[in-house]
Amino acid sequence: MRVFGVDPGLTRCGFGVVDGGPGRTVRCVAVDVVRTPVDADLAVRLLLLSDEVERWLERHRPDVVAIERVFSQHNVRTAMGTAQASGVVALAAARRDLPVVFHTPSEVKAAVTGSGRADKAQVTAMVTKLLGLKTAPKPADAADALALAICHHWRAPMRNRLEEAQRRADELARTHRARIAEAAAKQGGGR
Amino acid sequence: MRVFGVDPGLTRCGFGVVDGGPGRTVRCVAVDVVRTPVDADLAVRLLLLSDEVERWLERHRPDVVAIERVFSQHNVRTAMGTAQASGVVALAAARRDLPVVFHTPSEVKAAVTGSGRADKAQVTAMVTKLLGLKTAPKPADAADALALAICHHWRAPMRNRLEEAQRRADELARTHRARIAEAAAKQGGGR
Repeated sequence: MRVFGVDPGLTRCGFGVVDGGPGRTVRCVAVDVVRTPVDADLAVRLLLLSDEVERWLERHRPDVVAIERVFSQHNVRTAMGTAQASGVVALAAARRDLPVVFHTPSEVKAAVTGSGRADKAQVTAMVTKLLGLKTAPKPADAADALALAICHHWRAPMRNRLEEAQRRADELARTHRARIAEAAAKQGGGR
Repeated sequence: MRVFGVDPGLTRCGFGVVDGGPGRTVRCVAVDVVRTPVDADLAVRLLLLSDEVERWLERHRPDVVAIERVFSQHNVRTAMGTAQASGVVALAAARRDLPVVFHTPSEVKAAVTGSGRADKAQVTAMVTKLLGLKTAPKPADAADALALAICHHWRAPMRNRLEEAQRRADELARTHRARIAEAAAKQGGGR
């Protein structure tokens, strides 16, 4: 499985492509940070980002796109721009029929460091180690994108099992409801 | 000038197209509310919305797209979805080289009712009156989209004058700085 991890942003957007190997091994395919000019119109910045995402999807053909879930933080303006950027990335993936999954920052940190409250340096150190890179990916957005992709590789099997369990539970509930309805209909007919 | 006003949202997105006539007259060309299924994946919802925006741009050929500026409100989750929706709308406009302008809710309310703190009923009543509609546009998102378009029609001349003044000021400042640099170079050369 090949995962395209995206740490969304307008000023800096982290892109990281990671392949999964046997067991828990992961391999870095590509990593970069895309920037859009701060003084450009918002719509133009979104367009530049969207074009870049499409180039990456075309070039690296991932199986799934993992995006960091945005939370409204201290700076509302930044959070909105980040949300808009993440929407544009998700849209580009949906246009290619690719599944899009969102992971929270603490899920990502917990996946690669064991702690949901790890700092940036710790995340970068673990990403470098797990992917066997010679130098640490910089800036932090690049490391975050790789961490997201690794997080998705490791969480995906658990997610799939959960979804499968949910599907079975839903099916059982449906069957159960149908039987009740059938019994009620019979009772009504017998009156 | 034809303005496409958008009140962004994933569950309900208001679309309104308004033409400007002589003086301050405005005419409603089209209005609707686009919905995307609440239980669908976020990326799929963004794709459905994006496709609908493109259909409207193709059909109505506006000169400008006016979008409500999103603020992080009480519900962070909703605000993020709204921001992502607005990003997708801005992207579709940018792809067609259309200018995109954002107006805040209070600018819109002030433009059509005279008060930045008017309630939804007041906005709907004024939109109905200003556009000479026989029935009030429903739901509120539809009326808001029309109000946005009207707001843009009325604010655009003022914006253009402001931008023109800013351009002139910047030019004067540049000329001034160039002269100072020139004078400094002469002084330096004379030493």
